[in-house]
Amino acid sequence: MTTGAPVLLGLDLLGTFAFALNGALTALRHTRLDIVGVVTLGMITALGGGILRDVLLDLPPATFNDWRYLAVAAGGGLIAFVSGRHLHRLNTPITVLDAAGLSLFAVTGAGKALQLGLGPAQAVILGAITGVGGGTIRDVLIRQVPSVLSSGLYAIPALLGATATVVMTSLDVDGPVPAVGAAALCFLIRMIGVHFDLDAPLPPQPLEPGPEDR
Amino acid sequence: MTTGAPVLLGLDLLGTFAFALNGALTALRHTRLDIVGVVTLGMITALGGGILRDVLLDLPPATFNDWRYLAVAAGGGLIAFVSGRHLHRLNTPITVLDAAGLSLFAVTGAGKALQLGLGPAQAVILGAITGVGGGTIRDVLIRQVPSVLSSGLYAIPALLGATATVVMTSLDVDGPVPAVGAAALCFLIRMIGVHFDLDAPLPPQPLEPGPEDR
Amino acid sequence: MTTGAPVLLGLDLLGTFAFALNGALTALRHTRLDIVGVVTLGMITALGGGILRDVLLDLPPATFNDWRYLAVAAGGGLIAFVSGRHLHRLNTPITVLDAAGLSLFAVTGAGKALQLGLGPAQAVILGAITGVGGGTIRDVLIRQVPSVLSSGLYAIPALLGATATVVMTSLDVDGPVPAVGAAALCFLIRMIGVHFDLDAPLPPQPLEPGPEDR
Repeated sequence: MTTGAPVLLGLDLLGTFAFALNGALTALRHTRLDIVGVVTLGMITALGGGILRDVLLDLPPATFNDWRYLAVAAGGGLIAFVSGRHLHRLNTPITVLDAAGLSLFAVTGAGKALQLGLGPAQAVILGAITGVGGGTIRDVLIRQVPSVLSSGLYAIPALLGATATVVMTSLDVDGPVPAVGAAALCFLIRMIGVHFDLDAPLPPQPLEPGPEDR
Repeated sequence: MTTGAPVLLGLDLLGTFAFALNGALTALRHTRLDIVGVVTLGMITALGGGILRDVLLDLPPATFNDWRYLAVAAGGGLIAFVSGRHLHRLNTPITVLDAAGLSLFAVTGAGKALQLGLGPAQAVILGAITGVGGGTIRDVLIRQVPSVLSSGLYAIPALLGATATVVMTSLDVDGPVPAVGAAALCFLIRMIGVHFDLDAPLPPQPLEPGPEDR
Repeated sequence: MTTGAPVLLGLDLLGTFAFALNGALTALRHTRLDIVGVVTLGMITALGGGILRDVLLDLPPATFNDWRYLAVAAGGGLIAFVSGRHLHRLNTPITVLDAAGLSLFAVTGAGKALQLGLGPAQAVILGAITGVGGGTIRDVLIRQVPSVLSSGLYAIPALLGATATVVMTSLDVDGPVPAVGAAALCFLIRMIGVHFDLDAPLPPQPLEPGPEDR
């Protein structure tokens, strides 16, 4: 999210835009919101994962250093607010862009954690948080159990993309090519999950609600 | 929230008290809580916005440096716990004090972000977060969609007050007078919104819940 | 959570494991989750309080420096996922271990805040947050009003254990013995609360939901 290469920056801004658009549309579908709510939830979906990662790394959020991320995220939210109904037809391209954003965020998040000297398990977790954190905060704010915790194949591709990043860095395979490979792995698994409507494994049997809950 | 001038400190403590009282009463109205819950939610409403701002600025929360904020916030929560029913009649003065707190927090939050060298868009966002963040965390904890995202004129006055602060600072108009002016602007718009029961703009048409939600 | 003594480390890991197991089981009882959700919520219950404390202290989370905490927490979550139904019978030992974890976390959290120079009220609050923060984040994610805010005797023992830590430190009674005493106090009150099914005090009378909610 901070590297300067123009291609990566362009991809990153595109992913941010897709996250904001998709996030704001999801929020609109679930609850009544005004313009402040739609734009805020779009921005939180797009920027929340990176902010959460930076807070956990004890850094000032990188998003705040570059107004373009704020502008692109606000723009995605605004478009969802104005023309939410018509965007319904663009579901497939938005899902594809969202998967691209997930892949980029997971890989760059894990890379940033490794650069700061964190261990491999921590880098995988922080990469996944970068990818799924924004949508999770949005779901909490609109009073949904985060979909990433309950269904679909969303966290698992992010975890695998982050793991691939960590493995390749530990093998000293650095640079843009392996990063693109790790992102492509995440993207592919995510799209397979969407296409075949796959879920992550469910518990062997449901638990009945118990009398005590703490 | 940290400046030393006695008048500003007094106003800031009064705003903190109003936020705690109003926040605890709102929480009590929505869900069953014990004394820990009422006092905690009052304190979170009053202090959460400033803490969130400082976490996002990568600073230790300023609230923790001054026990008076903790004491005043806990006091507001306790009063709501003990005499919640009777305070119902004091609705108007509490709403007025809450608007004063919102105005102060938005202006001081934006000012603190500017002092730390953040850009204008970031300062506006952080000012608004300082004003509305505490109530948002409270709403999440009592399982409400944050009212700031769905109705009423609450975030917009905070955003305008923070924007006025940023504009005046960029024009080198510094000091207490323009800060009071920015806070007065926020306060006025908030009270107009309360009086005429205004809402922020809603989306052009509702979205039907779609089959896929991520 | 960072001290090196092997006994304390062992206790701390045991408490982490109990929190993860109990947290994941509680989550499973309340909502439909996949493997990512169960393990994530177990880890958040176990590690969230310490992470929240460190974020509020403006430190990088100590959990990330030691993979054993991550491994033990993930293990607790996985066991809950695989054999959730059978663990129902182990309710009593899990509750006891959970109370032990609460006691340890409250005492070590308050101690860490004091070491960093925070005042007594702040140290009590941060100790209690270390103990109850993880379960609170879990409850928010599974869309429950946090039980710590509404019923049971859970926050109060944590507050008392943290207070005892602060009092003994201010009397210069340092070292492992008073820490164990403070933890034992918290543990005892928690177990008395469980045994007699005690609640924290409730408000004098319920409030009817009002027309305005901010």
